[in-house]
Amino acid sequence: MSKPRFGAGIWHFATYVDRYATDGYGPPVSLIEAIDKAGQVGELSVVDLNYPFVDPKLSLDAVEVALKRNNLGVIGITPEIYTREFAKGAFTNPDPGVRRRANELINDAANVVRRFGADYVKLWPGQDGWDYPFQVDHHKLWRMSMDGVGELASQNPDLKFVIEYKPREPRVHMSYDSVARTLLGIEKIGLPNIGILLDFGHSLYGGESPADAAQLAIDHGRLFGMDVNDNMRGWDDDMVAGTVHPIELFEFFHVLRKNKWDGVWQLDQFPFREDSVTAARMAIDFLKVIDRALDKLDFEALQAAQDRQDALEALRLAQAALYSSY
Amino acid sequence: MSKPRFGAGIWHFATYVDRYATDGYGPPVSLIEAIDKAGQVGELSVVDLNYPFVDPKLSLDAVEVALKRNNLGVIGITPEIYTREFAKGAFTNPDPGVRRRANELINDAANVVRRFGADYVKLWPGQDGWDYPFQVDHHKLWRMSMDGVGELASQNPDLKFVIEYKPREPRVHMSYDSVARTLLGIEKIGLPNIGILLDFGHSLYGGESPADAAQLAIDHGRLFGMDVNDNMRGWDDDMVAGTVHPIELFEFFHVLRKNKWDGVWQLDQFPFREDSVTAARMAIDFLKVIDRALDKLDFEALQAAQDRQDALEALRLAQAALYSSY
Amino acid sequence: MSKPRFGAGIWHFATYVDRYATDGYGPPVSLIEAIDKAGQVGELSVVDLNYPFVDPKLSLDAVEVALKRNNLGVIGITPEIYTREFAKGAFTNPDPGVRRRANELINDAANVVRRFGADYVKLWPGQDGWDYPFQVDHHKLWRMSMDGVGELASQNPDLKFVIEYKPREPRVHMSYDSVARTLLGIEKIGLPNIGILLDFGHSLYGGESPADAAQLAIDHGRLFGMDVNDNMRGWDDDMVAGTVHPIELFEFFHVLRKNKWDGVWQLDQFPFREDSVTAARMAIDFLKVIDRALDKLDFEALQAAQDRQDALEALRLAQAALYSSY
Amino acid sequence: MSKPRFGAGIWHFATYVDRYATDGYGPPVSLIEAIDKAGQVGELSVVDLNYPFVDPKLSLDAVEVALKRNNLGVIGITPEIYTREFAKGAFTNPDPGVRRRANELINDAANVVRRFGADYVKLWPGQDGWDYPFQVDHHKLWRMSMDGVGELASQNPDLKFVIEYKPREPRVHMSYDSVARTLLGIEKIGLPNIGILLDFGHSLYGGESPADAAQLAIDHGRLFGMDVNDNMRGWDDDMVAGTVHPIELFEFFHVLRKNKWDGVWQLDQFPFREDSVTAARMAIDFLKVIDRALDKLDFEALQAAQDRQDALEALRLAQAALYSSY
Repeated sequence: MSKPRFGAGIWHFATYVDRYATDGYGPPVSLIEAIDKAGQVGELSVVDLNYPFVDPKLSLDAVEVALKRNNLGVIGITPEIYTREFAKGAFTNPDPGVRRRANELINDAANVVRRFGADYVKLWPGQDGWDYPFQVDHHKLWRMSMDGVGELASQNPDLKFVIEYKPREPRVHMSYDSVARTLLGIEKIGLPNIGILLDFGHSLYGGESPADAAQLAIDHGRLFGMDVNDNMRGWDDDMVAGTVHPIELFEFFHVLRKNKWDGVWQLDQFPFREDSVTAARMAIDFLKVIDRALDKLDFEALQAAQDRQDALEALRLAQAALYSSY
Repeated sequence: MSKPRFGAGIWHFATYVDRYATDGYGPPVSLIEAIDKAGQVGELSVVDLNYPFVDPKLSLDAVEVALKRNNLGVIGITPEIYTREFAKGAFTNPDPGVRRRANELINDAANVVRRFGADYVKLWPGQDGWDYPFQVDHHKLWRMSMDGVGELASQNPDLKFVIEYKPREPRVHMSYDSVARTLLGIEKIGLPNIGILLDFGHSLYGGESPADAAQLAIDHGRLFGMDVNDNMRGWDDDMVAGTVHPIELFEFFHVLRKNKWDGVWQLDQFPFREDSVTAARMAIDFLKVIDRALDKLDFEALQAAQDRQDALEALRLAQAALYSSY
Repeated sequence: MSKPRFGAGIWHFATYVDRYATDGYGPPVSLIEAIDKAGQVGELSVVDLNYPFVDPKLSLDAVEVALKRNNLGVIGITPEIYTREFAKGAFTNPDPGVRRRANELINDAANVVRRFGADYVKLWPGQDGWDYPFQVDHHKLWRMSMDGVGELASQNPDLKFVIEYKPREPRVHMSYDSVARTLLGIEKIGLPNIGILLDFGHSLYGGESPADAAQLAIDHGRLFGMDVNDNMRGWDDDMVAGTVHPIELFEFFHVLRKNKWDGVWQLDQFPFREDSVTAARMAIDFLKVIDRALDKLDFEALQAAQDRQDALEALRLAQAALYSSY
Repeated sequence: MSKPRFGAGIWHFATYVDRYATDGYGPPVSLIEAIDKAGQVGELSVVDLNYPFVDPKLSLDAVEVALKRNNLGVIGITPEIYTREFAKGAFTNPDPGVRRRANELINDAANVVRRFGADYVKLWPGQDGWDYPFQVDHHKLWRMSMDGVGELASQNPDLKFVIEYKPREPRVHMSYDSVARTLLGIEKIGLPNIGILLDFGHSLYGGESPADAAQLAIDHGRLFGMDVNDNMRGWDDDMVAGTVHPIELFEFFHVLRKNKWDGVWQLDQFPFREDSVTAARMAIDFLKVIDRALDKLDFEALQAAQDRQDALEALRLAQAALYSSY
């Protein structure tokens, strides 16, 4: 195999607020500064950019200059459909005017995808869902979830749209909550240019096996992208990849290699209290451990063990490869 | 609406073992005794029977006599595809001979369905799945999960098969783990006589909204049955329905009534340390509270609140109905 | 029993940001506006105030005027030991200078407690803990957690300090994570003026029985305060009290009444997408349902059932009282 | 450091039943056979024995012979206080007669401890707790939990008693549910011969950091024993140690070595569908990886990183040691 290409969501290099540290976990970082930090990692080929930019005066040309000097391409554009205006949803907002503006914003983002020659528009409908029992008509809500995405895909047949599902947060329950629900919706919509961006951590804390989720999306021809991080299985902690669940991360990449999936290995981490450049390097260092372990792993013997569903032999092979690949 | 008909899995009236109390939570109860206990509840119209019977000498005729004297019909037959022989799976067992025997056993159960005029064969593939990372080839496992069910449905086009999905237990992860995954599989199989039996507790502890899950299954035309119980959201505790999560149970039944779903309200409870007849009556007493609350609930006002996604008003209406219906 | 007095954290009436809706879930609300909203609820006797105030020019006198015109007293002061400066901890910050400033800030808050005649300084050390395996020396961290609180209690023997424990958020793991850990620390510190503020939701999502947690704190003479809300058992959702888990809320208040605990019934809710005044009223309406249900509940019969550990009879009594008290 | 000594609960080598596979996950294994299997592992020095033996005719002498020929000592005796008779609790059973029989059974077990020169009587009160809200009087229940253990420790001042806490199962909630609760109870009882047996998996799925739990028990002078296994953080899966959460297992052993804790490294695994001897060897192979990694780990540099709470540097050191120690 050729070496993996690495990428990151540009927010990895921002600072964050939450409901307690409302003054932020550090001084604000501008988009240009964040791009320069991404460059400092020295390992990244592409980034995913939020749109619109925090600074509305920042031009696409200025962003392009910053990207070029850091040798960074753009893999995707993530329209911000989860800010105040969309607090009650983008595709499923009860107000049709807000749904319309979400559609317009995403169409704008689609143009930025074209401008940068990116791979896809990334849809992360974090505010689409519900909080309370009895709050929504589940039939209508799911209908709107599918219609909103389907309309975009129809309007932009030349582009790919990826849905990044997640169980919850900020909504107590998100509509696109799992790999199976998202595939069910995509199959119902029935358009070829809608796929899944599989976030390892979302899958993990949703109780899925990320390896199984990846295989399912691949089997449906819908694994258009992925990113990695880690968590404690109960929340989307967006910790540094590999620091808590290395075995399941290894299994995830094993499935990707076995299926000859050759997309970018992206990071979606939120290093609240850590240096963002160091956090990215640390994750990539571990991803290289995994890459070496995959080179060492005896795929044939593993397949034979899996065909017998022999957990102990399968894990013995995996451990032998992983714990000798630092 | 007419009054609901109640049912129960016959195991509700058995005694249980687990990995600690290997001598059981009480003296063994024979199937005939369990049927008589079901009759003592005084509220049940139908039962779901495991097959084969624990006592291999017990005849179908003897069972029928016991059912008749208790005025009980049979809603479904649950073949025991989760005992020692199937410890590594029924549909997905690595041994093709075991897969064959699972098929034969379920075909036998299909004949019992015909014999008793029951509604369906219930498939609960609790041993089909995996325990460890790296243990299985997820592509093959899911393929076998679908093939096993599809073969049965093809062999018995006159009967309905229902899949009771569940996140886990006894397997660490079950193949049919969620409503969306199960629907995705059913749609792929593509036969009309496969549906879902939605267990409220499985849905709840899987992180679903049971009301949303019911709506989704209905929208796909696949809600063939359901049963209720309760738990602490982290495990399939099979506690008495309504004792812990009455609001979500109420929302679940609201969705059923709104969609004019008129199947049996079944119990799937495991009263380990309680009297089983009392536990069934207590659940049914609360289901009657819910039924009265549904009669009181202002469906139009609720729909209007849900169309605005107004959680507080929707819940106010639900609370007003529920807390005055004892 | 006399009627309960109600209170609320003043943040209930603010607007919120999170890591996604960084522009907030609504326009900012000043402290004075928040106090006026608290007054509009028409049911609140006291509020808990964050300190320092968001607007540093706001005087204590101005706050007092606003409180008076809304007939509100102050039950506690919550020093903001979880903002940027304290992102790596207040009591356990690795920087002794930051620990010193935390101590000073809380001593300032103690003076505000005296100024308003409030009941306690509330310590919510949300940033004290760890995120990653291997990150901290657990011996030293816990030592610092106890020392920081003990120093404050020694410096201010005339005042009460309450610790509001919580499993996690914003830290991946908080030092004061549970009722038992907090009591263990308090007993070790060994001072009489440190107690617990029991947040129902923190207890619930930490896997405790809030009723058991309350009893334990009472038995140690340390239940100095409490507040209520609701969640889905997996996160501190701070939803409207009673909307999801009414039974456990009822059991919690049963324990309080049985022990003749007569403190304020406070709200700690974050109505991100709801009107804050309506959300407070809705919670209080339900707390009144519970209060009426407690009046109806047969305490003697319940005690007899509990002495037999007869879950079904105990719950039957609870249901009879609760579902007829709207 | 000298090399670790390994041990195992003898049940590791039994077969299991659960509520579904009531015919067991394999043919029954006698105690003598289980001891011979323990011997076949070739790495075990001690075992923990359940008492009374399944076969009541089996003599202590016969057991001793089997142990000797396998070079096995006895580390502890686990009285079976969780079978049918104790289904509603041992120490907290509502029936005083059952509580008395529990005391007698454990006193019998104490004599077996003396007979074999074992280290302790192990108390695992899995049936002591509650299932439902409102079921118990929490004050009385906790009182009985402490009194039952305290009485035993007073009756047998020459012996050590260890409490193995666990969040739940088979009870929906166990009284001794966490390290802090158990320490709080032990301190209240106030006797020197009661300690904790820390099960890594119980700690993990209870939301604790096992490393922190170990440190806390050590700081209270109460870490009398430990055992390891793994799970998916949501249930006591008793999987092979190290297969899912190697990092936290490594941190756990780092804390033990740092504190010079030199007890036995025990296994508490339930290999339902795996060969038990292979499962034990696989765990021990990984524990040896950890032991080598501890030899390599730079304790001083790690302490410096922890003193700064520098998660990334601390983890870098841990990863460097672990992933090169196969």
